Amino acid sequence: MDRFSQQIAFLLELDKLKNIYRQTLVLHEDRAENDAEHSYHLAMMACILAEHAKEPVDVLHTMKMVLIHDVVEIDAGDTYCYDAKGYEDKAEREQRAADRLFSLLPEDQCREYRALWEEFEAANTAEARFANALDRIQPMLLNFKKGGISWIRHGIRAQQVIDRNCPVTAAGSDRIGQLAQEIIEEARAAGMLLE
Amino acid sequence: MDRFSQQIAFLLELDKLKNIYRQTLVLHEDRAENDAEHSYHLAMMACILAEHAKEPVDVLHTMKMVLIHDVVEIDAGDTYCYDAKGYEDKAEREQRAADRLFSLLPEDQCREYRALWEEFEAANTAEARFANALDRIQPMLLNFKKGGISWIRHGIRAQQVIDRNCPVTAAGSDRIGQLAQEIIEEARAAGMLLE
Repeated sequence: MDRFSQQIAFLLELDKLKNIYRQTLVLHEDRAENDAEHSYHLAMMACILAEHAKEPVDVLHTMKMVLIHDVVEIDAGDTYCYDAKGYEDKAEREQRAADRLFSLLPEDQCREYRALWEEFEAANTAEARFANALDRIQPMLLNFKKGGISWIRHGIRAQQVIDRNCPVTAAGSDRIGQLAQEIIEEARAAGMLLE
Repeated sequence: MDRFSQQIAFLLELDKLKNIYRQTLVLHEDRAENDAEHSYHLAMMACILAEHAKEPVDVLHTMKMVLIHDVVEIDAGDTYCYDAKGYEDKAEREQRAADRLFSLLPEDQCREYRALWEEFEAANTAEARFANALDRIQPMLLNFKKGGISWIRHGIRAQQVIDRNCPVTAAGSDRIGQLAQEIIEEARAAGMLLE
């Protein structure tokens, strides 16, 4: 295959993200959000909210990172963030997925996009910390606006949401960290989270 | 509302793109694609295929443009590209939608994102020509891979697809223009398009 055909093959493979369903519901229909929609939303947040990142960020780099951060779920599936069992072999499943998926691309782009995914996972750069903060606040916002439906459905405790999200959101953005705390306080007061 | 709250309000409004359904079907389920998924796909095409743009493009600028190019459909709805009647008042409906939607943002971002939408519509810059080429090739690719289902359903003629897509794809990218022609030839040979 020539370079262009490899790129088109990868882009067609990405269509499968439209069929990976998450625990979060979309706001205006009674159905789960999929990874393509989630990633779309994060990319828009990355450009609209870039000024609130804790450190200055390269917006293009951040947008590419959030757009591909869930690509491995095409093979590895979505692991619900409060599913301790699913997390046991998550890393291994996702590494295998990354091997297959990114190698559909020409070699230079395979390296570039795999590195972006690894950077997101490691969360050791300003862009990755900001991207991870967006990845945590987006489902919190949607879930809160839907009356906490997915927290209630899974019997999630306030402390679980705090432990999972507050350090990550605060590391990426003071303002987003503050929003995460506000959401948890209101959700708690409204009985959307268990004590 | 403070600046951050205005930005969050706009981002929550974007959730409605997940409920604007297009004529194109997703590849691996029997359902229509929505605007959030379509825009996700275009943003990935913009960064993966940037090297094939006819003129050098600013990738960040192109990605932001494709991510917001369908935002007006939240109010104006999706107009099927071969629906001559729907096109009569499309421009007016979309201008009203742009007035409302972009003004949810703080003033500087309202100006920036509205200008990006207008640039996409006018297609007078290298980025907008490339973005428009992507917006045409993406549904052609999906529809072709689905056996031409939406062309067949609407009884579309080969010449309609040529007139609508070939000048636009060729203006944005030689390679994408060539792919559009290849798809049309194969679709024609396979009886997916009427003569």
